Amino acid sequence: MALTLNRADLEALIIGGCFFGSGGGGTLESARQLVSHFERGAYYPTDTVTVLSVDEVHEGEAVMVAYMGSPEAIDGAAYPLGPVQAVATIQAQLRAQGRQLTHVVPPESGALGFSVACLVAARLGLTVIDGDGAGRAVPSLPMLTYAAQHVDPRPAVLVSQDGLTVELDVTPAKGEHGDPQHQQDVSVILEQMMRPIVAAPEFKEFGGLAMWVMKPAELRRAMPITGTLTRALQLGQALRNGEARSLRDMQALLRTRWGLEALPLCATGELWEAAVDTTGGFDLGTVSVRSGDATTEVLYQNESLLAWSSRHAHPLGMAPDSLCWFFEGEGDAVASNGDLVQPDGRLNPAYRGRPVTLLGLPAAAPLRVPGGLILDSFMAQVNTLGYRGPYVPVERLQTLPGTHAQEVVHG
Amino acid sequence: MALTLNRADLEALIIGGCFFGSGGGGTLESARQLVSHFERGAYYPTDTVTVLSVDEVHEGEAVMVAYMGSPEAIDGAAYPLGPVQAVATIQAQLRAQGRQLTHVVPPESGALGFSVACLVAARLGLTVIDGDGAGRAVPSLPMLTYAAQHVDPRPAVLVSQDGLTVELDVTPAKGEHGDPQHQQDVSVILEQMMRPIVAAPEFKEFGGLAMWVMKPAELRRAMPITGTLTRALQLGQALRNGEARSLRDMQALLRTRWGLEALPLCATGELWEAAVDTTGGFDLGTVSVRSGDATTEVLYQNESLLAWSSRHAHPLGMAPDSLCWFFEGEGDAVASNGDLVQPDGRLNPAYRGRPVTLLGLPAAAPLRVPGGLILDSFMAQVNTLGYRGPYVPVERLQTLPGTHAQEVVHG
Repeated sequence: MALTLNRADLEALIIGGCFFGSGGGGTLESARQLVSHFERGAYYPTDTVTVLSVDEVHEGEAVMVAYMGSPEAIDGAAYPLGPVQAVATIQAQLRAQGRQLTHVVPPESGALGFSVACLVAARLGLTVIDGDGAGRAVPSLPMLTYAAQHVDPRPAVLVSQDGLTVELDVTPAKGEHGDPQHQQDVSVILEQMMRPIVAAPEFKEFGGLAMWVMKPAELRRAMPITGTLTRALQLGQALRNGEARSLRDMQALLRTRWGLEALPLCATGELWEAAVDTTGGFDLGTVSVRSGDATTEVLYQNESLLAWSSRHAHPLGMAPDSLCWFFEGEGDAVASNGDLVQPDGRLNPAYRGRPVTLLGLPAAAPLRVPGGLILDSFMAQVNTLGYRGPYVPVERLQTLPGTHAQEVVHG
Repeated sequence: MALTLNRADLEALIIGGCFFGSGGGGTLESARQLVSHFERGAYYPTDTVTVLSVDEVHEGEAVMVAYMGSPEAIDGAAYPLGPVQAVATIQAQLRAQGRQLTHVVPPESGALGFSVACLVAARLGLTVIDGDGAGRAVPSLPMLTYAAQHVDPRPAVLVSQDGLTVELDVTPAKGEHGDPQHQQDVSVILEQMMRPIVAAPEFKEFGGLAMWVMKPAELRRAMPITGTLTRALQLGQALRNGEARSLRDMQALLRTRWGLEALPLCATGELWEAAVDTTGGFDLGTVSVRSGDATTEVLYQNESLLAWSSRHAHPLGMAPDSLCWFFEGEGDAVASNGDLVQPDGRLNPAYRGRPVTLLGLPAAAPLRVPGGLILDSFMAQVNTLGYRGPYVPVERLQTLPGTHAQEVVHG
């Protein structure tokens, strides 16, 4: 059933989106900044957004829209100019061919992924489809179901916040259009292209990407993970209404409303420290939690990808399973890593000292397909963080021997 | 007057092109490898190439074609597959619009720039225009007259040696299409895009770029530096015929045939050592020449860009003026830096111990326009090599005080 969201709904949506983002998906702060400017006026012709379920889509075409850029850069933006122009460019191209763009789809679950899709739709008179490409936030494009389902990644339109527009038409060297190699090629090239846009002083560091144009039948095939936008909205509303102040209540809510088994990966503790390691050519962040005499370390590249305990010889959880922060006490119950760690590298005082638990959420089934593009892409990323073993689902990790302190060998 | 080149002509062309390439423009070795496969057969439908002067072009359209990639990567290529497919893609696009691509233009003077343009033309049944965008080899696209004359850089087609095709349509954030900022944007994005194509193991490291489509009138405006292909051909033929074995003969030939004043920047000496410094994020190469007790250092990034003497407080020469190697004795009289320095960083024995002189050639007038895109781009590059002063023409540097050893202050 079509749903109409107003600004208060978007404020709830980003809270729920942030939880499901697995530590990434954009900061609460940047999403709140964008949503705070959502009102009918010179920029937005309306103050509501229409959300349709995939089953309600029977005509028109849809395109994925994503923001690209560093969290700090996006913090300063009042309007999603780059994403809007990227979609407007696709819209104009389709119109010139007698086709009609009517919908946008979010790339991923996350505070920015959901809110940018909604704001772009409001600006351009489109609707948003209730679902996304992963049910969590992801570090790169081949990890999305649109890639795994071989939606043709042509054209791809990338626009910087100040309007530099790059349209990219990548023809693979061999194989079918839209196949895994084609998706990888496009992703690698787009990520490289973003670097000058992000680094060059003349560019604002906030880009928008529109890619993967889909007709209704293809949309249904390429978007198996549905209902995630309303899930985030409802979780945000529940948290705002005080329905999940304790860990026990949060777990019960996730289980009863969405059948999600959220596994506590550490005893409830406190944030301990944050670090960023730039050796190896990329920024690898770590946030640690201290619970009693055990330390839990979460490794992230925007998104949290791998968690270790000082007590165990195997990880506590790894991507594509989600590693989600949950805080008790006064203040936001959820956070992305960009909210926890300030630009100066220190822990945000708004979260320090509060009871925190790292929750492991089993990934949606399409992310766990053995030998699939998505799982292979996630594991390649996890491997770069130093874990060389196989993918082990988070619920299975909890049953492994050696998960209790007394079993650990010292010496 | 139209000129017809056969393989022997191309062999001479690359020798002359190499001299005018100012130490860059591709290695003799890689160009010889490509030219050695030029024969009528399965790949080439002809064994000759037609060269037209700019004034002879009255219909059809032209496009610039360039190779992109590291010299070592290109060494292994038998055919210019990437450049051919890049031009073929543009050709097909124009045909779909009822337009006809009939000519290619080389990017720059150099062994590969000239030979790749000729081989692409032979493969696709096009002609080559006698001229290029700089009269020397250049490190980046905004240094070419096509950029300075605001030829629209859309579309740009980049193709890897194994066929991955990327078409790039960059719309500037502000300003006119083709303006300096637009050219810079496209150049930065293309160079970034080349990195994965160069670095990723699934790509061959030899890319082809086709960009800047021009009708005859625009071609005449955007190609003020003409006759450079026949100049390189004739110099190569003269060197092959033994007409310029000594420095004195070489200077006389350049002066009488083309009015070029080649200034010896050091006393004739021997190659001394080579070094590559990777601090600062880019590869900065140095080749030094020892003449008596003076050392001349040539700094290069592919092309030679700056020369210093151990005796002087100012450079001996700087880009956009050319810094060209000339060797006496047995063997090739010319060399690119990629020919002089082997992949292992050592000096090539074929050149070591032979009398060598570094010759300074005043840049063509379009490269010296104060405040122009070309001169500004060259000086930005020279600045990164540590020289922070203004551009001083090579002929003026020779008249500065302190160019004699006895005037240098010690202690």
